[in-house]
Amino acid sequence: MSALGNDRWRASFEVEAAGWHRYTVEGWTDPYGTWRHDLEKRIDAGQDVEVELAVGAGMLRAAADRTKRLARSLRAHAEKLEEGSHEERLSAALDPGVAERMRDLPESWRVSRYPQELFVQVDRERARFGAWYEMFPRSASEDPDRHGTFDDVIARLPYIKSLGFDVLYLAPIHPIGRAFRKGPNNVPDADPDHVGSPWAIGSEEGGHEAIHPELGSVEDFERLVPAANGEGIEIALDYALQCSPDHPWVKEHPEWFRHLPDGSIRYAENPPKKYQDIYPLDFETEDWRALWRACNDVLRVWIDRGVRIFRVDNPHTKPFAFWEWLIADVKADYPDVLFLAEAFTRPRRLERLAKLGFTQSYNYFPWRNEKLELEQYLTELSTPPVVEYLRANLWPNTPDILTAKLQHASQPAFAQRFVLAATLGASYGIYGPPFELMENAPRGDGSEEYLDSEKYQVRHWKLETSAGGSPLRQLIAQVNRIRHENRALQFDRGLHFHSVDSPQLLCYSKVSPERDNVVLVVVSLDAHWTQSGFTDLALGELGLDDDEVFEAHDLLTDHRFTWQGGRNYVELDPWRVPAHVFRLTSSRRSEDARTERRNEQPHEPARPQPETHPEEP
Amino acid sequence: MSALGNDRWRASFEVEAAGWHRYTVEGWTDPYGTWRHDLEKRIDAGQDVEVELAVGAGMLRAAADRTKRLARSLRAHAEKLEEGSHEERLSAALDPGVAERMRDLPESWRVSRYPQELFVQVDRERARFGAWYEMFPRSASEDPDRHGTFDDVIARLPYIKSLGFDVLYLAPIHPIGRAFRKGPNNVPDADPDHVGSPWAIGSEEGGHEAIHPELGSVEDFERLVPAANGEGIEIALDYALQCSPDHPWVKEHPEWFRHLPDGSIRYAENPPKKYQDIYPLDFETEDWRALWRACNDVLRVWIDRGVRIFRVDNPHTKPFAFWEWLIADVKADYPDVLFLAEAFTRPRRLERLAKLGFTQSYNYFPWRNEKLELEQYLTELSTPPVVEYLRANLWPNTPDILTAKLQHASQPAFAQRFVLAATLGASYGIYGPPFELMENAPRGDGSEEYLDSEKYQVRHWKLETSAGGSPLRQLIAQVNRIRHENRALQFDRGLHFHSVDSPQLLCYSKVSPERDNVVLVVVSLDAHWTQSGFTDLALGELGLDDDEVFEAHDLLTDHRFTWQGGRNYVELDPWRVPAHVFRLTSSRRSEDARTERRNEQPHEPARPQPETHPEEP
Repeated sequence: MSALGNDRWRASFEVEAAGWHRYTVEGWTDPYGTWRHDLEKRIDAGQDVEVELAVGAGMLRAAADRTKRLARSLRAHAEKLEEGSHEERLSAALDPGVAERMRDLPESWRVSRYPQELFVQVDRERARFGAWYEMFPRSASEDPDRHGTFDDVIARLPYIKSLGFDVLYLAPIHPIGRAFRKGPNNVPDADPDHVGSPWAIGSEEGGHEAIHPELGSVEDFERLVPAANGEGIEIALDYALQCSPDHPWVKEHPEWFRHLPDGSIRYAENPPKKYQDIYPLDFETEDWRALWRACNDVLRVWIDRGVRIFRVDNPHTKPFAFWEWLIADVKADYPDVLFLAEAFTRPRRLERLAKLGFTQSYNYFPWRNEKLELEQYLTELSTPPVVEYLRANLWPNTPDILTAKLQHASQPAFAQRFVLAATLGASYGIYGPPFELMENAPRGDGSEEYLDSEKYQVRHWKLETSAGGSPLRQLIAQVNRIRHENRALQFDRGLHFHSVDSPQLLCYSKVSPERDNVVLVVVSLDAHWTQSGFTDLALGELGLDDDEVFEAHDLLTDHRFTWQGGRNYVELDPWRVPAHVFRLTSSRRSEDARTERRNEQPHEPARPQPETHPEEP
Repeated sequence: MSALGNDRWRASFEVEAAGWHRYTVEGWTDPYGTWRHDLEKRIDAGQDVEVELAVGAGMLRAAADRTKRLARSLRAHAEKLEEGSHEERLSAALDPGVAERMRDLPESWRVSRYPQELFVQVDRERARFGAWYEMFPRSASEDPDRHGTFDDVIARLPYIKSLGFDVLYLAPIHPIGRAFRKGPNNVPDADPDHVGSPWAIGSEEGGHEAIHPELGSVEDFERLVPAANGEGIEIALDYALQCSPDHPWVKEHPEWFRHLPDGSIRYAENPPKKYQDIYPLDFETEDWRALWRACNDVLRVWIDRGVRIFRVDNPHTKPFAFWEWLIADVKADYPDVLFLAEAFTRPRRLERLAKLGFTQSYNYFPWRNEKLELEQYLTELSTPPVVEYLRANLWPNTPDILTAKLQHASQPAFAQRFVLAATLGASYGIYGPPFELMENAPRGDGSEEYLDSEKYQVRHWKLETSAGGSPLRQLIAQVNRIRHENRALQFDRGLHFHSVDSPQLLCYSKVSPERDNVVLVVVSLDAHWTQSGFTDLALGELGLDDDEVFEAHDLLTDHRFTWQGGRNYVELDPWRVPAHVFRLTSSRRSEDARTERRNEQPHEPARPQPETHPEEP
């Protein structure tokens, strides 16, 4: 621990394994150190220190009684304080090495321990940094007459790799209930040949541990996982704890559901809305231990099949205590498992889920579109206290969310929202292919639902898989590559917003923890017209001096600009370039220059030290 | 508890007795309330609610099993949901009174309790508000040939009352040791007739429970206490836990002191300085229980003699655990006892002492003289978090502190420091008569010691006790009267600094908790020249509208000014008026005007509510 002044101390430790780490703080007084410190002052003042040397020898002998390992050497040192020439005795008394050993041998009653244990949860890198791609495997077939299969997903992997994604998240892959099955666009009474919603989990073919037969077999799935890994892509599954009326648990464990006085099971409702195709699990059932255990077992089945990432559906509608137990229990055995919370709920509940163990969380990014709200919200997400417990995953769209901003939007709006998500967030995701194909038609009832949503029907996307593809796909691939090549973009921390004198331009930088990688992004929020303005860069945040000449290398266009100072002209035509993503490098970055700069930099102002009154005894 | 939105809640409770109050927070879910809420929506949507009424009746009957008192009425109410006309049954189901009773009958497993207990320490009013006057009783005699006595102090009471003080704090009144007694101006070897320092406590005449014979007897002291109370003045004593070598404890309990290997007792030192006249107590002695108990008993002796306020000498040189135990133990029996910590130490230690029980604390006010440092420091002391646990007592001088600012100072400097202390702090004190007599001669060794300090000799002050007295005494009396008449000055909270365009003028307001008393103070920090400037008042802080005409009544000069808006001219000639102490009153303070103003005031901006995604089940 190192003293910061004014009785504040700082300490750090390195974590070397994933999992939970506990720590606390202990402190103690160091009478020998105090004695030695005073002795120096007595000697300097020319005082007789004969009795003090005896005091020190006594402390050494008392300490020797508290240690086996050092007992002999401490006793021997005590003798040195009492025997030999005056100089030898003083020198022995002031020996710094002995003082250091004595410091670490406190009498036990002197030790104060902070009574709380503090925790650090350590995850592997993908918890912090990754680009997600969500898809419905049943739509993976390009043949309009065929339901998609895991093999189609395997065939789609090179495409997803070409876009540069790290995680492939699949909508639920389990058997789909038939009772009250929903038809296209969520119409209540489906034809028998309608496929239903994959979130209505469970049929006579099985429940959460089973696979929808039309997608393939367990063996097919177990081929998909390594195939994806081979492309550098990890598979994430949906973990949606709800049942269709046909789920095996309904017959096997009726006590896990809530019953009405007429004997029926209470289906999901948000009065007056009714969701007859879904039975919520009753987490408060008297048989809760068995139910919670079964939910835990479901996860372990998929972990055994090679899955290490779960996107959790609506976690806020289940008890906090359940998640706290479940996540800790699973991570105790598999510290590499990650959980993304679909916590589209109120802020304090979203935060609570993060605190009790979720690795990442969805958040309000989809609805933050204006300059000020983006600056404020992303600053909140990337600075303490929030960044200490919550890792945001930024999604411009999901199967449930075609925002007003993207409804009927043209390519620039998609490109802008993409650049924002991928450069503001170390973790982000898109729901494709609708995103990269710029699907923009809403169901039209004022909701954020897609028209002909894959949630209720199989779609067959026409993907131009030849090299290149659409400009948006080129941008996605380019930005994902830039993310991998620039460590600054791999952390939520290190984000800083800079002034730019246009309400339609957003300007921000990210700096790597080592401060050796600096990325500056300028995004236009105007999807229609060219916007321009002058930046007012906070150069200190960028590690630059006021007068320093630096290079701004636009990683999207490969243009290089030589800039000096904080005021620089930027102009963005949304139809040509949605954003600048600059890597900044100082032109005079030599060791000499850096040393010089460090010396010139004003030190952080010292904390004001109170004038203390000289203490009288 | 009332909801503030976004899952934040607020609750308050009134404390009605001095002492410690424990509290925590419990919360639970209210399934009946949720059911009733949903039922309303179902009814509005015209749904069949037959089965829901049975659900509600079931909940009522289950709750009846949890309560004796309400069991019958709940069961009867359950029947009302099942019998009677449709309208009667619905009306019974929606009955808000029953819902309220059900809310307070949670199943025990639904109740979450915040696991920590929180504490509020409640003290009587004098803990928050009071003007202190410190004196050496031995100097209370105006006869230069006579040592002061308690009777002289009694004779001095009308004078102290005329100055308007609430607390009379006496320097230690115990027998003074003879060994290594200090002479005038702290010279080491005193003559036998020198009186010594009253902080060198204990002689053959007794220790901390005894009275210095020259001051009088226990009976004399027991006359002083009620005599002071009769004048509205409370006696405070010094609690200085240290002993002269002649203290009875040295012989009776040698184990309470630290011994050197040569058998001698370790006297107080701050190497290389030596204080041979003082033996510190060894709070870490193996016999610590007996020592701590004896220190506690000392307090109780003086409590029995009528004392309820103790000024604690150098508490930071004794263990935190000792104070935590001592104060809690004493206050458990005597919740009206107050402790002022002479904690002239580092900020975190000063704060820690406040947190572990001290009622009030000395602080760095004596050394805060410039505008910015006064604004910053007093804002720190009067706002959370500090104001939550620390009550500052502001002293412009003490027997140990004649600040550089006051050394050789003229009357304006004394007047300015006085007004600052008495109007910035709800509690403040002066060390008199040196303060009101404007003693300004330092010992001259660069220290803050007074020349011919009462700490080492008896002084005989010439007090002009006729009506009026010096201008400084008139000011003291006037300001203390103003403090009693203006509730705003009786709280540390409610302080706000306003802009004034002169670096030598300080401008601040205090507003009472009820916001019905507003005092505005302008003090010059220049003790030599006239200073003037324009204020830029934060009118909202003063409860005034932008365009409002208000009266500024100078309570020192009785001048009345009609002001409008925040910009007002102020001028202070330090030799004529050290400060303005205005009471502000709105000219149009009628009920109508107030209502109007309230309606006009912009509301606090609403917390941003996230756009939450509509939840799917």
